[in-house]
Amino acid sequence: MGKFYSINGEIMEAEHAKLHVSDLSILRGFGIFDFFRTSRGKLLFLDDYLARFRRSTQIFNFFHDYTDAFIKSHVLKLIELNGYKESSVKMIMTGGYSHNGFEPTTPNLIIQVEPLKFPDKRYYTDGAKLITHKYVREFPEVKSTNYLTAIMLSGKCKTENALDVLYHDGKIVSEVTRSNFFIVKGKKIITAKTGILKGITRGKVIRLAKEHYEVEERNLLVEELEAADEAFITSTNKRIMPITQIDNYKIGDGNVGKVSKHLMALFFELEEAQ
Amino acid sequence: MGKFYSINGEIMEAEHAKLHVSDLSILRGFGIFDFFRTSRGKLLFLDDYLARFRRSTQIFNFFHDYTDAFIKSHVLKLIELNGYKESSVKMIMTGGYSHNGFEPTTPNLIIQVEPLKFPDKRYYTDGAKLITHKYVREFPEVKSTNYLTAIMLSGKCKTENALDVLYHDGKIVSEVTRSNFFIVKGKKIITAKTGILKGITRGKVIRLAKEHYEVEERNLLVEELEAADEAFITSTNKRIMPITQIDNYKIGDGNVGKVSKHLMALFFELEEAQ
Repeated sequence: MGKFYSINGEIMEAEHAKLHVSDLSILRGFGIFDFFRTSRGKLLFLDDYLARFRRSTQIFNFFHDYTDAFIKSHVLKLIELNGYKESSVKMIMTGGYSHNGFEPTTPNLIIQVEPLKFPDKRYYTDGAKLITHKYVREFPEVKSTNYLTAIMLSGKCKTENALDVLYHDGKIVSEVTRSNFFIVKGKKIITAKTGILKGITRGKVIRLAKEHYEVEERNLLVEELEAADEAFITSTNKRIMPITQIDNYKIGDGNVGKVSKHLMALFFELEEAQ
Repeated sequence: MGKFYSINGEIMEAEHAKLHVSDLSILRGFGIFDFFRTSRGKLLFLDDYLARFRRSTQIFNFFHDYTDAFIKSHVLKLIELNGYKESSVKMIMTGGYSHNGFEPTTPNLIIQVEPLKFPDKRYYTDGAKLITHKYVREFPEVKSTNYLTAIMLSGKCKTENALDVLYHDGKIVSEVTRSNFFIVKGKKIITAKTGILKGITRGKVIRLAKEHYEVEERNLLVEELEAADEAFITSTNKRIMPITQIDNYKIGDGNVGKVSKHLMALFFELEEAQ
């Protein structure tokens, strides 16, 4: 746990950051969030994250007065107070303290700062395994706090020695529980265009990839997975992570592929240049 | 808001009932609940609700030490302290204070007691309107706190002057956001058997109805709705509420039907006899 959090703009010791139980996140799972991080102490791609957070609040009709400028300076203050070398930041906005346990009211804004953690390095050298599951997220374009299915599947991940779960609707592949998903097939890089949370890292990777490869944003079919040459996932605290197994089949020769390695290097360069 | 709530067995003034923001209900919408009420001061069908709550905790792998006997005596104490003529009780169990914002830990148990409220009487004399929406609840047999879709549709309900939303999967009708759904067709009463939360009131109504009518628990098709003679919904704080309109068509002649009235009377008798 970080040292200092904030609730509705008020900074406090993290242990005192509490919400009343009438909050709709507790009673009705009604909340959104976003998650970003620093790179060499600087907030990476912050404007993109703030824009996405704002879009989530708009789609869920959260009426609030927080400007991007306020959030920015407030997050910077919190990061400074916490004093970590590198930080991750989670902003959560909830449906607020409801009078009747159902109707949203003035939202509550929680900001948590934690020391930044990356996944184990072996995932990047050896590649990770995904298992597939038929599931379509509600409001996939919104970073809502609903992770019921993901949490319920985490036991299965452990049993099957998988990093995470790849969702599909029976036909079309969408996304991983907290990452976007890509395959490489020949000279093409393919990733879902709709029905997903549009990751900030995903957007950066697509832009980088387009300088060197053909990128197709389109419906990716489940039946295309097994024939993929390479696969990888992207997220804020994973960057680009290679996938070398899905369910019981290897991707390509089961090793981290050339294109994945190339993109991983390009992304590091991009991050360094910020 | 009630006067006294409890968290993890500790009774406190309701305004002080708070959860730390690391709770998984806030971060990941990971929680279950149940809701019951008194009738002439006595907890109505309590054992049924406690059994369902326990099933929900088991399906979600919530490991806790609360026995039914403890919950019972604790709820009675809370009801006495609050001192309302009739009370509603909400028990919420959350995924607990997570170390990493994803993995469940020791659950938190919140109990809220409020003065009991029933819907406006006109719904029972005139009948209510439902609108339909294609949606399948995740883990429908669990009373989870995930009400994203229901809350997002509450604006549409207001616009369309509807009480609530009837879910279907495009073909099969399941349930209303917080109620079970029945139709009457000729001498038969039909309601969904699977893919729903099995309401305690639903179970009591089915048992009552079987003494007088033929009851079919089976897949109810969307195309059967328009031809229904009567329709009604059941829930803890609605008892049996007649439905006289769905979307833009009337049910039967648009008035509360004979069978609905009969069952409403039988349910009152059952409640009185407890």
